[in-house]
Amino acid sequence: MQAEILSTGDEVLNGAVIDSNAAHIARKLLQAGIPVVRHITVGDDMDRLVAALDDIGKRSQVAVVTGGLGPTLDDLTAAAAARAAGVELAENGAALGYIEDFFSQYFRKMTVSDRKQALLPASAEPIVNPAGTAPGFRMRIGQCTCFFLPGVPMEMKRMMAESVLPAITSSFRAGDGPRHHQEKLLSLFGLPEATVNERIAGLADGFGEVKLGMIARFPVIDVKLTAFGPDAAILEDSIEKAAGQVTGILGNWIFSTRQEPMEAVVGELLREKGATVALAESCTGGLIAHRLTDVPGSSDYFLFSAVTYANAAKEGILGVSPETLAAHGAVSEPTVREMAKGARRIAGADYGLSTSGIAGPTGGTAEKPVGTVCIGVAGPDRTISRRIGFPFRNRSANKEIFAQTALDMLRRELSGLDQIF
Amino acid sequence: MQAEILSTGDEVLNGAVIDSNAAHIARKLLQAGIPVVRHITVGDDMDRLVAALDDIGKRSQVAVVTGGLGPTLDDLTAAAAARAAGVELAENGAALGYIEDFFSQYFRKMTVSDRKQALLPASAEPIVNPAGTAPGFRMRIGQCTCFFLPGVPMEMKRMMAESVLPAITSSFRAGDGPRHHQEKLLSLFGLPEATVNERIAGLADGFGEVKLGMIARFPVIDVKLTAFGPDAAILEDSIEKAAGQVTGILGNWIFSTRQEPMEAVVGELLREKGATVALAESCTGGLIAHRLTDVPGSSDYFLFSAVTYANAAKEGILGVSPETLAAHGAVSEPTVREMAKGARRIAGADYGLSTSGIAGPTGGTAEKPVGTVCIGVAGPDRTISRRIGFPFRNRSANKEIFAQTALDMLRRELSGLDQIF
Repeated sequence: MQAEILSTGDEVLNGAVIDSNAAHIARKLLQAGIPVVRHITVGDDMDRLVAALDDIGKRSQVAVVTGGLGPTLDDLTAAAAARAAGVELAENGAALGYIEDFFSQYFRKMTVSDRKQALLPASAEPIVNPAGTAPGFRMRIGQCTCFFLPGVPMEMKRMMAESVLPAITSSFRAGDGPRHHQEKLLSLFGLPEATVNERIAGLADGFGEVKLGMIARFPVIDVKLTAFGPDAAILEDSIEKAAGQVTGILGNWIFSTRQEPMEAVVGELLREKGATVALAESCTGGLIAHRLTDVPGSSDYFLFSAVTYANAAKEGILGVSPETLAAHGAVSEPTVREMAKGARRIAGADYGLSTSGIAGPTGGTAEKPVGTVCIGVAGPDRTISRRIGFPFRNRSANKEIFAQTALDMLRRELSGLDQIF
Repeated sequence: MQAEILSTGDEVLNGAVIDSNAAHIARKLLQAGIPVVRHITVGDDMDRLVAALDDIGKRSQVAVVTGGLGPTLDDLTAAAAARAAGVELAENGAALGYIEDFFSQYFRKMTVSDRKQALLPASAEPIVNPAGTAPGFRMRIGQCTCFFLPGVPMEMKRMMAESVLPAITSSFRAGDGPRHHQEKLLSLFGLPEATVNERIAGLADGFGEVKLGMIARFPVIDVKLTAFGPDAAILEDSIEKAAGQVTGILGNWIFSTRQEPMEAVVGELLREKGATVALAESCTGGLIAHRLTDVPGSSDYFLFSAVTYANAAKEGILGVSPETLAAHGAVSEPTVREMAKGARRIAGADYGLSTSGIAGPTGGTAEKPVGTVCIGVAGPDRTISRRIGFPFRNRSANKEIFAQTALDMLRRELSGLDQIF
């Protein structure tokens, strides 16, 4: 039993939009115990659509196809499916009913081109689309049961949840039952990929059915433990044991075992301590505040960020002394210590966190090249600072890694851990 | 002449990460005049990697393959390429030199597994990776010239620009010349997709070889004009004429004709006027500052943002009066007007921009439901404010659309255009 995913449309093929549908479908199929072996993308081109469906019909037992079901001339998927299966297109009464229902519900007038969406391969069973006008359908091509869904992510997601996954579960679970799938990600920050690999490489031999992998999601590395098997409880137990061994080796470089981003972990630590935080951001330009406030409920502990690009703002708003700026410059440990203390003081927060650095692409000097950042953390008991150099020349990459490093410094300070830089 | 893109890795196949590499590569190949006909994704599985490379070698003349070049056991791409081409793996001296250079440049110690990255198919020519340790390589499989690059987006992008595209242009342009491809995107904000569609639907008939399309990239809609043909100058001329007609209909809803994000457009307007800006962000939580400071050179006009979640910070730092807050609440037009004026005053900026709203998922009331935002713009001549309600319940979606709306209000104010809300 294996599945494939086919995304269609010139806009995906040509890179005008990034295909997030395939990732969503892959995750859902995997959670239902059905391994995905290939994704394919082709454009709005009849011959290439038919060729891709032919390949899938020979290779796999389940496929989810997205896109090309709409009312326009570009929308060729139903015709291609008919050709791949060797059947005719015909107006499907049930599908037409779904479309009429949708229009009557939203008081919109149905046009001739809307009606085209009921033209399905003769062997297809329609799938209702509760969020849009184009119905999906299900049909066999070669040895494969193919589910055709619209490309609009919101419509596709509802139809996956409400129709496709239940159909797959009831059709395939009974006889040729898929096996269970369990996975756990341990997210870590601050160690290079090669180092993580060397430290854990030997472990996998003792893990039995648990597979050990690594995912680099800049600037985070996930150590991934996965297992397929007939008994969910046994799998979970094996994965927890394996996770314990990995944690024994990688320790507090791991910041989450629940796929949380760093800002959610820091937020939880602040909440547990009943503590609040204020920021003074220069080179990160508001990114740390944006990340912290992306967490629902962050208003409980996030008080304030001063994004101070100009020195005048560092002096006037944060109270950094002109002497410090003159003697050490804006990108210096004395300056970020004063910035962190200033943010903490003016917001009345328990912790202050600050950044000043050179994100690039210009503005670097021999002494302070692009990629240099100074970070300060001011807490109730002490104020610390670090100067770190990263090898990136790219402004966005530098903002990302500066923000992540600052949040990790605060995480370590809140947890009483040693700092790593 | 046609190209394919192969993305490799369990994390992409299983949907743990969304594949943005394929879209980037497709755009770049298309800009170089080489049409892409298929993307494929397979996991870290030797047989399936070899099968995908075999297919590509039979079908296409150019391929770009990403992922699986790193130092870990999962990284199988070089071995799969060797098998698909029927050659052995061997340590490549030039590739080893690239790796050693990278490590010496960043003072890191090279490990045994780092050295594995120099093990390439015997027929491969290495490609330097200026931003990471894993070199890429180029080799022939079947009838196809395949370029193998790391999966890390930052590394892949630099190698595409610095090595792959120059090689493709010099190898393939001369003889079997690809046809030219021209495209233009008109980016607009503030109109629903269906409205845009209705207004421009009739135009396409008069456009000749120019194809008209629409891409919804929340919260932006791009109207896309594309043309393929033998003569670049004629294509450009036809596209400009079509763009003129679309602009005549959609007018200043279009904020960019050069694929710039809104923050870059606002930045250019500030630079042209020699003006500066300061922000007071509540519900957007630093996102506007983050976006404005993502533009290189933004320190010339961006002075300061106060991310003031707490009312105390709105009063203490921005000088919003306690009476205004008590009478109208934090999410109100009087409050955002005082916030915008306060940010402008304390930073000494020409313009102040402020937001206060309810991003959700909780915190809404009957009178001010989730999705409500108030935005203020204070300029040298006047201060304006608007209250707008969006239908989203999702915190990130609300932050995005609040920030985009605020930047568009500032754009319209800087350009002397009418406000749309």
